[in-house]
Amino acid sequence: MSITKPSLPKGTRDFSPQEMVKRNYIFDTIKTVFKKYGYAEIQTPSMENLATLTGKYGDEGDKLIFKILNSGDFLAKVDEQLLANKNSQLATSKISEKALRYDLTVPFARYVVMHQNDIAFPFKRFQVQPVWRADRPQKGRYREFYQCDADVVGSPSLLNEAEFVLIYHEALSSLGLKDFNIKINNRKILSGIAEIIGKPELIVDMTVAIDKLDKIGLDGVSKELLERGFTESDIEQLKPVILLEGSNVEKLESLKKVLANSATGLKGIEEIETVFNYVAKLTTNSVALSTVLELDITLARGLNYYTGCIFEVKTNEVAMGSIGGGGRYDDLTGMFGLKDLTGVGISFGADRIYDVLEELNLFPETAAQGTKVLISNFDEAAELFALPILQQLRAAGVAAELYPSAAKLKKQLGYADSKNIPFVILIGADEMQSGLLTLKDMKSGEQQQLDVISLIEKLR
Amino acid sequence: MSITKPSLPKGTRDFSPQEMVKRNYIFDTIKTVFKKYGYAEIQTPSMENLATLTGKYGDEGDKLIFKILNSGDFLAKVDEQLLANKNSQLATSKISEKALRYDLTVPFARYVVMHQNDIAFPFKRFQVQPVWRADRPQKGRYREFYQCDADVVGSPSLLNEAEFVLIYHEALSSLGLKDFNIKINNRKILSGIAEIIGKPELIVDMTVAIDKLDKIGLDGVSKELLERGFTESDIEQLKPVILLEGSNVEKLESLKKVLANSATGLKGIEEIETVFNYVAKLTTNSVALSTVLELDITLARGLNYYTGCIFEVKTNEVAMGSIGGGGRYDDLTGMFGLKDLTGVGISFGADRIYDVLEELNLFPETAAQGTKVLISNFDEAAELFALPILQQLRAAGVAAELYPSAAKLKKQLGYADSKNIPFVILIGADEMQSGLLTLKDMKSGEQQQLDVISLIEKLR
Repeated sequence: MSITKPSLPKGTRDFSPQEMVKRNYIFDTIKTVFKKYGYAEIQTPSMENLATLTGKYGDEGDKLIFKILNSGDFLAKVDEQLLANKNSQLATSKISEKALRYDLTVPFARYVVMHQNDIAFPFKRFQVQPVWRADRPQKGRYREFYQCDADVVGSPSLLNEAEFVLIYHEALSSLGLKDFNIKINNRKILSGIAEIIGKPELIVDMTVAIDKLDKIGLDGVSKELLERGFTESDIEQLKPVILLEGSNVEKLESLKKVLANSATGLKGIEEIETVFNYVAKLTTNSVALSTVLELDITLARGLNYYTGCIFEVKTNEVAMGSIGGGGRYDDLTGMFGLKDLTGVGISFGADRIYDVLEELNLFPETAAQGTKVLISNFDEAAELFALPILQQLRAAGVAAELYPSAAKLKKQLGYADSKNIPFVILIGADEMQSGLLTLKDMKSGEQQQLDVISLIEKLR
Repeated sequence: MSITKPSLPKGTRDFSPQEMVKRNYIFDTIKTVFKKYGYAEIQTPSMENLATLTGKYGDEGDKLIFKILNSGDFLAKVDEQLLANKNSQLATSKISEKALRYDLTVPFARYVVMHQNDIAFPFKRFQVQPVWRADRPQKGRYREFYQCDADVVGSPSLLNEAEFVLIYHEALSSLGLKDFNIKINNRKILSGIAEIIGKPELIVDMTVAIDKLDKIGLDGVSKELLERGFTESDIEQLKPVILLEGSNVEKLESLKKVLANSATGLKGIEEIETVFNYVAKLTTNSVALSTVLELDITLARGLNYYTGCIFEVKTNEVAMGSIGGGGRYDDLTGMFGLKDLTGVGISFGADRIYDVLEELNLFPETAAQGTKVLISNFDEAAELFALPILQQLRAAGVAAELYPSAAKLKKQLGYADSKNIPFVILIGADEMQSGLLTLKDMKSGEQQQLDVISLIEKLR
């Protein structure tokens, strides 16, 4: 066996114990909220059949799917000419049948269709698993990363949308975030606007341009709209939309005027109002949400699949892209032959939330703590003395370690320090004779003498 | 987008909410014990560089590694002649640089070497992640399955081995298993026996044959030993080993005689005795372990890498292969250039443990329960009435759902039933008027009238 200098594939990461504890803190917090709202966990395999995934993410997406090489003599049946032509794209389908999942949504759609007879609809599921994308790695973008999704399918009720607003609010607040916005929009409002101008086919161009208002101002947006096929008179009509301001209620009132002649647009407004009403009824004792939830007409994520409400969450405490998003799709499972199943879902950007909590120093101290106490080991007699105490601590539910061999005090304290162990029990000749053990608080440096029972009581 | 009839790659599985709750129960129980003993979680990427994995699992293992096709125009730089020859094996290294991990041990070794300067040794880590093998799928054998490992590297102390015995005992007992054996052996004892006979190179053949005693009897074992290159006189020498019986102490006494002239063999016995002594000291108040821990000289897993103690765990309540195993390896990280780092580790067979618990009906009822209460929804008035109650329940930590739209009682009760929701709150005109809500116990069918505060108190 030759010696390999170890390295990792680019865009992938190891997670150390310290990082894992923090990551689990985030995932556990979000999962707890999902469960409280009636969402149940599922998992799907890392591999899907290639045919399940291709064609679902556009041509660019297809290229970013990691394909798995067939096992065995995979070249045997491949056409010679095809190989001679070195046509990688055509060859792929001949030498690869499986691929790593690209997101959690398509596997979820497949799951729903395959298990439709066992599922009680509305089906509220959450899923926290890694996905893989052959993107160019860069700061904050990885080739393997976790998605953290909740979706409900089989219920058109806008109560679901409202509950997702609450889920975002509760989860992010639980994580200690204080200033964030949950932005909401509705695809039907955007469609209505494009319809009023008479250019429904330009809905995406319109939204992309409007979305840049903050960066390039009204003149810049107007210029871009002209380039994208709109006329001066279109832009005149769009102005009240581009310059929409005020409270959510005020924005909705302005939009109602603009969209008075679009049934679709008015439907979108009605949906948003219903969500706002549900949220208000669900939070009678809290005013927090009314300032957090914000109608943002420029929000345009997922216009290829979202058909109703659209969500995006941004923190205002750190410069960071969105830390969550989602929306309603009216035909998730149609691609697998199950028509007319409506759904709505949201996603948390766990990696970004991690960076936000790190920057704001919001991870609780307990989220960095594994072992609670280390028992020192200076010689065989002390080790023998320590063994039953070690096990009594564990029986009391205290995560405890005995340093596994005799070593210098400094080395053992260094071990405790690097593992963030808050207490060390020192056992020397005096302690063994008196039965009073020395408990050292690693943070304050203080030491106290305690008998075993008091010690366990203190550490429990 | 054409419609794909959905299916899963063979050997892979979806996990439903009911299954996930049970799987999490197993993983959480084991993780809790790992942590109590000072083990900290890490995770490594699903993908490793192909060079990290190849050559570590033997030729057969190499074939079972799932390779990932390079992205982009992967054929562009491949030699024409190589493609024309259709040499799949040679081609693999040209069109694939990455692969899915095959186990958690090699990635762990890579991790230790790459992060050696940040690690405080002894390094006690656990890891629960999926691995992938292109094995032929069959009952109970999957192409994607979770491994659940704990290892400590950098400590030669046999206290670690003893603690693993306790970890097995505590985790499996916590899961409700009552009758299982933790089998222990030592590679050095096997080496000693082969040495005494003068055939150290035949250690594996010897052990494989002896291991079959239960199935094929002494005559069968003798026949197999002859076929594998041993003589009649070798077999005569081996008889006391093959027929080893009695308590652990009795077995060790017999072995001491057989191995009197083998320093290696005696070292192995001493190691086992040290582990037994540690276990006894750690469990002064418990006799349970002395009957569970069993010296089994035929235990021979991992002879290619284990150098000291070897473990295997079997349940006696269900016919099932081993549900756990492990051992000490003296040179885990040598393959990556870090010499002389000794380690010892164990693994839990989570899929098999799942099947055992299922067969013995040992999953606790709480492990099947997600949402605690469903609020019915018969019309808009009732829905409005329910919204603040729904949120009060959640604020009290009760996982609660409101059926998201008005529907017939039967449909809503069916939904609660299929999701295993134990309580349903019925809100009709009477309830809204009196403020006393009807709480239905789904198991007993009983109904009672409660005001909101009492209701929350009861469900909390």
